[in-house]
Amino acid sequence: MLRVSGMACQTMNLGSKIANIMIGFEHLKKLSHASPSKIVLLVIDGVGGLPHPQTGKTELESANKPNLDRVAKESICGLIDPVSPGITPGSAPGHLAIFGYDAIKYTVGRGIVAALGIDLELNPADIAARGNFCTIDDNGIITDRRAGRISTETNTELCQLLNEGIAISGAEIAVTPVKEHRFVLILRGEGLSPELADSDPQQVALAPKEVDALSAPAQRTAEIVNEFVSRAKGLLQDRAPANMVLLRGFSQHPDIPSMPEIYKLKPAAIAIYPMYRGLAKLVGMQLLPAGDNMTDQLKSLRQHYDHYDFFFIHFKTTDSRGEDGDFEAKVHAIEEVDAALADLINLDPDVLIVTGDHSTPATLAMHSWHPVPFMLRSKWCRSDSVTEFSERACLGGGLGRFAAVAIMPLAMANALKLDKFGA
Amino acid sequence: MLRVSGMACQTMNLGSKIANIMIGFEHLKKLSHASPSKIVLLVIDGVGGLPHPQTGKTELESANKPNLDRVAKESICGLIDPVSPGITPGSAPGHLAIFGYDAIKYTVGRGIVAALGIDLELNPADIAARGNFCTIDDNGIITDRRAGRISTETNTELCQLLNEGIAISGAEIAVTPVKEHRFVLILRGEGLSPELADSDPQQVALAPKEVDALSAPAQRTAEIVNEFVSRAKGLLQDRAPANMVLLRGFSQHPDIPSMPEIYKLKPAAIAIYPMYRGLAKLVGMQLLPAGDNMTDQLKSLRQHYDHYDFFFIHFKTTDSRGEDGDFEAKVHAIEEVDAALADLINLDPDVLIVTGDHSTPATLAMHSWHPVPFMLRSKWCRSDSVTEFSERACLGGGLGRFAAVAIMPLAMANALKLDKFGA
Repeated sequence: MLRVSGMACQTMNLGSKIANIMIGFEHLKKLSHASPSKIVLLVIDGVGGLPHPQTGKTELESANKPNLDRVAKESICGLIDPVSPGITPGSAPGHLAIFGYDAIKYTVGRGIVAALGIDLELNPADIAARGNFCTIDDNGIITDRRAGRISTETNTELCQLLNEGIAISGAEIAVTPVKEHRFVLILRGEGLSPELADSDPQQVALAPKEVDALSAPAQRTAEIVNEFVSRAKGLLQDRAPANMVLLRGFSQHPDIPSMPEIYKLKPAAIAIYPMYRGLAKLVGMQLLPAGDNMTDQLKSLRQHYDHYDFFFIHFKTTDSRGEDGDFEAKVHAIEEVDAALADLINLDPDVLIVTGDHSTPATLAMHSWHPVPFMLRSKWCRSDSVTEFSERACLGGGLGRFAAVAIMPLAMANALKLDKFGA
Repeated sequence: MLRVSGMACQTMNLGSKIANIMIGFEHLKKLSHASPSKIVLLVIDGVGGLPHPQTGKTELESANKPNLDRVAKESICGLIDPVSPGITPGSAPGHLAIFGYDAIKYTVGRGIVAALGIDLELNPADIAARGNFCTIDDNGIITDRRAGRISTETNTELCQLLNEGIAISGAEIAVTPVKEHRFVLILRGEGLSPELADSDPQQVALAPKEVDALSAPAQRTAEIVNEFVSRAKGLLQDRAPANMVLLRGFSQHPDIPSMPEIYKLKPAAIAIYPMYRGLAKLVGMQLLPAGDNMTDQLKSLRQHYDHYDFFFIHFKTTDSRGEDGDFEAKVHAIEEVDAALADLINLDPDVLIVTGDHSTPATLAMHSWHPVPFMLRSKWCRSDSVTEFSERACLGGGLGRFAAVAIMPLAMANALKLDKFGA
């Protein structure tokens, strides 16, 4: 046996260096300047896909999408990796990356995102958790994690029941309804910690878990949460299918620099779903009315166009239909975006970006790690030879395959909002 | 509205992010070895461009350039990002990246670059600033930042006037002419600091600014500089158009490892313009005679070919004509390089690299963020199918789009000057 004593390998900072170096916020803050030019970022959630086994064509390749293809012809195209090759992004890291944040460094708990999405007033120390009403059987085993998707009205009534019926020493507790079976739990008080494991086992046929403290200082918070769950169970016992609660994503508001601070932008979000509104608010966007569909969203864009210089528009249906595993419905959702896009093209923003926050191939019926088609159109984009907005076509684009965190510097550059770096 | 007070953004290590990992100098120092093979790096300043609105072709695509295209056919090609996607490099970071330095980490002040470019002998503690003679009106407002580009002779005379007429307690002061309206100011003394803001507002119709100290220890240096400016204004009052001075880029010599140290090279530079000579000297290159044009530069290359193993040849006109916004003149400048290139091809260096430090599209008339065509020819380059040296063609090259900081390891590898890494 070789003895290595005396040559012990020290911990060294060998600092591996960087090929695709990404400039940091401290520099972007100095280089960016406000200007009247407009950037519009359209996120088609989960737009990337995989080939249909019968046709060999992906959802994008199967869709009739003249407007997307027209923009592709005038754009520089590529494929983005939102987090890192091989990593499947949740919605929060997927969007944070597109907004320019290193999604590995800047993490946002699910509870916080849910809370922000319904305009809850949070203090920095508040603990937020995402909650589901669920169904348990007589043995306490989960039979439906979503309580048969109860109506939002029932949800609201049940939240009121919990708020009125539960008081626990050491924390103020607020339960706020979201949509259907979803609610947000907020704990406010001295010395609380978000270092808690979920009670939601994320599958049926198991009992809800006790909430475990992940660190010693979180012990008291775990006790408070478990007391809440126990009291909720009692109050809900006759309210089947919503006869229990599941909690996950305990978190506090992250310390994250805002887009106005980094880029000197006045950014606005036109997103229908709470989570995306929450993410947008988190990075300092103003939330604008979004209505119920893309037509409403684009109407809102036109109404507010003069008052902001960056617009994030979020389209959800592609992801939902992908998660359903419904290939044809996802194709139709793409065609729905495409139809609405004509209006956006006519508005002719200085920079128009179309991409997704991750892929959601209908064949997989879930978010996936596959890089996502991307295109950026501007007067200065140096367009490439790509003529179609699809996974395969964008691979040959002028941006190649790149990290999503580079999108914002590219958007700023093309909007002529970045000064030269160095002498 | 969510209140975010109390969550002020802290100073964070925003540490640039990594896509492709790049090996560091500490390893390159161990892996590199001296050998007789020759590397020639031709930098065509600002060579990258954008399509002409009428023809749809870039400057490179419009030029008749049989020699560049011939080299492309025999090379491995790609597109470099000198600093980071979306970031427009100044000349210093653009060149440092090509020389293998992370341009975000290794920054060089404009004053130092200007001082090095005219062969000033600097002590490590000296403070250098870039100066302009400028024109102010009776109200002290700048009407011409370049004093009508006075002759270098007049400049020399005025610098002598300032040197003889100004003595300030606490620092030796030396004003040295560069070309036309440009000079370098050097301050030498105990306890001086370069932490000073510019006096140059970088635009006309404003008064020159007082020089502000950016840190408390720089207060005394700021006072010395402001005293210098005030005295200079007095001495120059009857010398319109050169009746005032503007200062910017206060800096000290950076601590930067040299190319001989990292790569065991004996590198030489053949550059006509001071800034590029200065940058080359900064990284440890020997400055060779460059004459007035590419023909002179290549003659110098042949004369000194046996005595060095790395040659940096700098061609400026492409950038100048790009900044002028003169598309046709930039095309002609490319054709001028191309004609001279025949000689370089005949010399047949073991590794021939042709690229630029950034793009300067004539349509934008300024440096830009667009990646720059790159080609490397060597016996071992694994050439690709690219047959033309242009933005679009190089996109399909074997190197794809990559960070300029990877050029030097590639050059060293192709010159067979790098050992195997690891057992």
